[in-house]
Amino acid sequence: MESLMIYMPIAMAALGLIYMLIKQSWVLKQNAGDGRMKEISDYIYEGSLAFLNAEYRLLSIFVVVVSILLAIVSFVVPTTHWLIVIAFIFGAVFSAFAGNIGMKIATKTNVRTTQAAKTSLPNALKVSFGGGTVMGLGVAGLAVLGLTAFFIFFFWFFMDSSWTNTMDMTIVLETLAGFSLGAECIALFARVGGGIYTKAADVGADLVGKVEAGIPEDDPRNPATIADNVGDNVGDVAGMGADLFGSYVATVLAAMVLGNYVIKDMGGVITDAFGGIGPILLPMAIAGVGIIISVIGTMLVKIKSNDAKEPQVMGALNLGNWVAIALVALSCYGLVIWMLPDTMKMDFFGEGLQDISSMRVFYATLVGLFVGAMISSITEFYTGLGKKPILKIVQQSSTGAGTNIIAGLATGMISTFPSILLFAGAIWASYAFAGFYGVALAASAMMATTGMQLAIDAFGPIADNAGGIAEMSEQEPIVRERTDILDAVGNTTAATGKGFAIASAALTSLALFAAYVTFTGIDGINIFKAPVLAMLFVGGMVPVVFSALAMNAVGKAAMQMVEEVRRQFREIPGIMEGTAKPQYDKCVAISTDASLREMMLPGLLTIGFPLLIAFVPMIFGMNNLAIAEMLGGYMAGVTVSGVLWAVFQNNAGGAWDNAKKSFEAGVLINGEMTYKGSEAHMAAVTGDTVGDPFKDTSGPSMNILIKLTCLIGLVIAPILGGHTIETTGITANNIEVTENVSNTMEVEISTDGEQAQAVVMRTFTENGELKEDRTVLEGTPKEVKTAIENLKVK
Amino acid sequence: MESLMIYMPIAMAALGLIYMLIKQSWVLKQNAGDGRMKEISDYIYEGSLAFLNAEYRLLSIFVVVVSILLAIVSFVVPTTHWLIVIAFIFGAVFSAFAGNIGMKIATKTNVRTTQAAKTSLPNALKVSFGGGTVMGLGVAGLAVLGLTAFFIFFFWFFMDSSWTNTMDMTIVLETLAGFSLGAECIALFARVGGGIYTKAADVGADLVGKVEAGIPEDDPRNPATIADNVGDNVGDVAGMGADLFGSYVATVLAAMVLGNYVIKDMGGVITDAFGGIGPILLPMAIAGVGIIISVIGTMLVKIKSNDAKEPQVMGALNLGNWVAIALVALSCYGLVIWMLPDTMKMDFFGEGLQDISSMRVFYATLVGLFVGAMISSITEFYTGLGKKPILKIVQQSSTGAGTNIIAGLATGMISTFPSILLFAGAIWASYAFAGFYGVALAASAMMATTGMQLAIDAFGPIADNAGGIAEMSEQEPIVRERTDILDAVGNTTAATGKGFAIASAALTSLALFAAYVTFTGIDGINIFKAPVLAMLFVGGMVPVVFSALAMNAVGKAAMQMVEEVRRQFREIPGIMEGTAKPQYDKCVAISTDASLREMMLPGLLTIGFPLLIAFVPMIFGMNNLAIAEMLGGYMAGVTVSGVLWAVFQNNAGGAWDNAKKSFEAGVLINGEMTYKGSEAHMAAVTGDTVGDPFKDTSGPSMNILIKLTCLIGLVIAPILGGHTIETTGITANNIEVTENVSNTMEVEISTDGEQAQAVVMRTFTENGELKEDRTVLEGTPKEVKTAIENLKVK
Repeated sequence: MESLMIYMPIAMAALGLIYMLIKQSWVLKQNAGDGRMKEISDYIYEGSLAFLNAEYRLLSIFVVVVSILLAIVSFVVPTTHWLIVIAFIFGAVFSAFAGNIGMKIATKTNVRTTQAAKTSLPNALKVSFGGGTVMGLGVAGLAVLGLTAFFIFFFWFFMDSSWTNTMDMTIVLETLAGFSLGAECIALFARVGGGIYTKAADVGADLVGKVEAGIPEDDPRNPATIADNVGDNVGDVAGMGADLFGSYVATVLAAMVLGNYVIKDMGGVITDAFGGIGPILLPMAIAGVGIIISVIGTMLVKIKSNDAKEPQVMGALNLGNWVAIALVALSCYGLVIWMLPDTMKMDFFGEGLQDISSMRVFYATLVGLFVGAMISSITEFYTGLGKKPILKIVQQSSTGAGTNIIAGLATGMISTFPSILLFAGAIWASYAFAGFYGVALAASAMMATTGMQLAIDAFGPIADNAGGIAEMSEQEPIVRERTDILDAVGNTTAATGKGFAIASAALTSLALFAAYVTFTGIDGINIFKAPVLAMLFVGGMVPVVFSALAMNAVGKAAMQMVEEVRRQFREIPGIMEGTAKPQYDKCVAISTDASLREMMLPGLLTIGFPLLIAFVPMIFGMNNLAIAEMLGGYMAGVTVSGVLWAVFQNNAGGAWDNAKKSFEAGVLINGEMTYKGSEAHMAAVTGDTVGDPFKDTSGPSMNILIKLTCLIGLVIAPILGGHTIETTGITANNIEVTENVSNTMEVEISTDGEQAQAVVMRTFTENGELKEDRTVLEGTPKEVKTAIENLKVK
Repeated sequence: MESLMIYMPIAMAALGLIYMLIKQSWVLKQNAGDGRMKEISDYIYEGSLAFLNAEYRLLSIFVVVVSILLAIVSFVVPTTHWLIVIAFIFGAVFSAFAGNIGMKIATKTNVRTTQAAKTSLPNALKVSFGGGTVMGLGVAGLAVLGLTAFFIFFFWFFMDSSWTNTMDMTIVLETLAGFSLGAECIALFARVGGGIYTKAADVGADLVGKVEAGIPEDDPRNPATIADNVGDNVGDVAGMGADLFGSYVATVLAAMVLGNYVIKDMGGVITDAFGGIGPILLPMAIAGVGIIISVIGTMLVKIKSNDAKEPQVMGALNLGNWVAIALVALSCYGLVIWMLPDTMKMDFFGEGLQDISSMRVFYATLVGLFVGAMISSITEFYTGLGKKPILKIVQQSSTGAGTNIIAGLATGMISTFPSILLFAGAIWASYAFAGFYGVALAASAMMATTGMQLAIDAFGPIADNAGGIAEMSEQEPIVRERTDILDAVGNTTAATGKGFAIASAALTSLALFAAYVTFTGIDGINIFKAPVLAMLFVGGMVPVVFSALAMNAVGKAAMQMVEEVRRQFREIPGIMEGTAKPQYDKCVAISTDASLREMMLPGLLTIGFPLLIAFVPMIFGMNNLAIAEMLGGYMAGVTVSGVLWAVFQNNAGGAWDNAKKSFEAGVLINGEMTYKGSEAHMAAVTGDTVGDPFKDTSGPSMNILIKLTCLIGLVIAPILGGHTIETTGITANNIEVTENVSNTMEVEISTDGEQAQAVVMRTFTENGELKEDRTVLEGTPKEVKTAIENLKVK
């Protein structure tokens, strides 16, 4: 059993995907309605396909370019293997495929939900959540399947499927990082491009349709209305899916890298029932079990009564979610006890090697689950309807848009207080329990329920779309009432889902950051070195500028959309009377093109800066380890500032949105009930206009920015080259091998002060093949130093 | 001559203060007008005094509380001397006194400027800039006078006015840090409290006066109008003055601390003509010469033609400014060559001791002067009338307040790009030239023209007030035209002054940060340690929450003002007809009380967090050096995030302001000239409402937050205790003295691998008195280790 453990995650992923296929065929078998309903749904489906196809065309070019770059790097740098290119391409393809499944099922489920809402609310929930389940399990299943398959392959290819040493495993994991990089690049396109798409269409549709032409939202006479509905799917379904796909893969990968370093700290070899790689397999096992748990969780989401309201629907979702979290906690307990040595050794900075019991690793996973649950509550508190911060923004709307804006900004800013304290506490606690391995496993445990989380997230936009279709196809009011209940719940889950996404991005980045340091072999990132501090500043600035670029991109794309809608109203006679059809496809094309074009600059910023920091100083002959430390400073700056700006923008945007929505049911301002159409409501609408790109474009983009930055760092790490140089004991420092030895040598030195012993290991030949070459040097520190220097000359 | 050099800065400061007194009496001798003019001016003067008195009452309590805390600390901790309390009180008193001089002269000069404007523009400039000069030289003179006097006193008290060792000098400088802390605490009250005051009065006056009652700005019937004019003085004069006073003192102090470490790196003793303290005296000498240069600079500011317009006035200011900068560069060259050893040794992290020629220190000062000049240009580009970013915001105003807000936010955010790259480049370059001593001297050189800069800054609000008085006292149009020219120039200098203030705060914080690390004796701040990383996150969050609190404070205080103004309009009959006088003093009192009350929470946040981070883990028995490193991470987080948010908020606020002002002269939107009162203008007004607290309250407060955080860190540093433990060479690490030796021992260890030598120095007896106790230990590393451990038991 234990020896087959490496195949367990892949089997679980396969089971999850099979369940997904069954669910998919069930959803597709549901009645898709007819006439106007079907027509509108087809438009949305085709619009989504148009975006996907355009995205894939651009992606193909991008993937080819990056692949060539990676290939060149892998041939020039001996520690990087060309298989990273294959892993990269598959990472991109898997993520794109997962997005494809999600988009297709979402755009097929919407109309079926409308149809089901004609019969009963339980049915409508069953269908819409069924679609969400397909999306969730598709993403989680493909992520685990791809990552574990590649691990098994590389483990066989580089190590003949049995443990040799941590060096070889590092090569395996460095190559595997390509898969993660591919996935995150897709996320850049899906999340940032999708974010621009959805808001450009939304703002464009509103500005001309609602404001200028005076027709209601989702009116089929508005040429941009289909683009608007497509946008919901592009941004909220595909974007969120790709984001979590990337987090999932990166988290597990980082935990594996750190598991490898646990083995290293324990002397380079451990004996366990899992071929000596228990700490590396554990994160994969948690991910695998998480898929099955997600299946169970989704099965629990159902309601019986047709008279149910929001609380019952929310309750059903919560039940599934909490059971899933509890089951993950239980499984983590079992897996940790089973798979880890009872006591491990971990190297803590400044404290040396420490004994860590496996139970402490379990506690670290509990920290991760706690963060996942808490961040949702915090988000809910600052953005939920009827909560104090929202009521305050509503009050401030009475004195105009200016005070509404100030109140919304302040709410978003203050919400960073509990959020950041939560993250900081989580970093501290999980590290105190089990070092950075603990941090990475906290993230893994939190991400284990990704399938379930995504099902809940994707259900929202599906219900939203179903409502739109009901409106456009003029169904009976009861249908809209039922979809509205689902939609309202979906709005809440959308906000908490954003909280989950940023928490996952934050923990993932931290895990990647830790993996980066161990990959490069630097002995920390000292911000008291001025170049490192300078890069911390630059890193802190990038999320701010990125957000501004994303916001400006929405503005530019929306303006183009406005022009096009105006043109159609002007040039197509009979459009307002409903006798002529608008050219929906033109608007879809504009949103598609604009979003992909406008994401270039922020994308370039994201990818370009780490490359500049790594390679420009290299050209000027700067020491590689010094560069690695600078890049680490940059990564830390991006992560800290990115998390801050993500929380700030998401919550400010969410708060403005719900402050505006509060007016629909009426709010009490200065003792008077105030409704839609009042001055205060107009002020709240202005706030929402500002909040829209905050919460749907620039805010969520931060997730991708910070993860991609850390991933690029991780992929560059072997080029910066430290990882093969390890020095323990201080004499090594004294004889200065750290900075001079070539990349292809591993030197381990121990000393008792008078005597030194060095183990020098060369692992690669010059043409990049693996070859071990172990030399043991003994003598006084001076003698060892001379011996090593002689070796270097060879 | 050289031996008297220590008295040079104090002499220069005295000369500057004498010139200030002469200028002051000249200004006060000018005709102060009569009748209505004098009456209004008196109201403003009294309102300012009311604020100052209230501030001083609160300050006294605060100073007493902090003094008691400092006294307790100084008795408990042997490395902290009780004289720090005296230095603290004097720092607070000097800064408060400087603010007093500034406020008084500003409120006396305004009406004299109006009167002078009746005769000619050159006269008006002469009077208003004369007032600015008094303010500038008062601040700069008192800063240098206080700091150098205390240095001379402590140098005599602790070292008998002659060099002993770097340890003793560290005690001198640690005690001197009290002066800086006192100054910065006043700045907290003046800048944050003043920022809240000025905006509460402004918004309150506008909301009821302009919007509800429909009377123009500066109308004497508005009860809040005097508070509004007082606010200009409180925020822009006293706040800016206290801010720069604090920066000036802190910069020079940090440079002195780092100069002491240069001497340490050179073996603990240097021989020069300045009693062996040339590197420590240099920053004081630059500051002293800077005062005389500022006097020269202010003398150059004059115009001759009565037909002059803005460009001529601006040109006169620029001439003075540029000549001052050029003279500082020249003086730095001379002083560096004269006062520093030709070649110094400095310890660079990871690179060991390096030879640094004195010319490289001069280059570092040029970097500082370059930053000071460049940051003004960058600010001018993003916020200046007629510049591209402003025109874009104007265009975006045509589609409503929402798009105006987005454009303004985006402008502020993008402006961080060149600003942060400039700072990062400056850190890098000045460090590369001369280590952190170079960074601190770059800051010192930039701050040398503080007197001149403040004169230019303070001239703006004086001219603004003069215009207000002209309006309220219904002078002939030509008077208002002349003051308007001065006011327009003042608006530009206000924006660039904010740039200078944040640049100075950023460089000061970096210098303090560097001094902190050397004080604590930690070997860097490694953000790969999870607790340090967690604190980096927490530090990054604080400026965001601080800004939100400051913005909310403005909102609350403004609402109280609105209530009061409404009450007066309601309850005082004849107020609108001008037959009854409004109760100006009530409004002044509300603004005063509210501002001082509302600044408590952000103040507590600023002071509380570093204390919590330092002392809570201490209670739980955490290692002091580990705490020092965590606190360093927190300081770095606050600095990086604080600088970002300062630039973002200042520039967004400035951009919105000028976008609104653009409508006064008319702007071209979509081919149509658009003016005040248009829809687009209303949108721009909304933007300005948001921008007001950004640029005048929360943005400038960041300066204080980051400096005060780093200063508190510096004052806590000796308590954390590392500074007396210095280990060189790696054997020291091996025998683990760094973490176990008591605070009172200095251990220097060198080794060639087989043999070790340790110099152990005890400097304090248990009751805190100075006592040297030097022991040299030799032998194998093991023998030395045992010997040190035996010493520890004693």
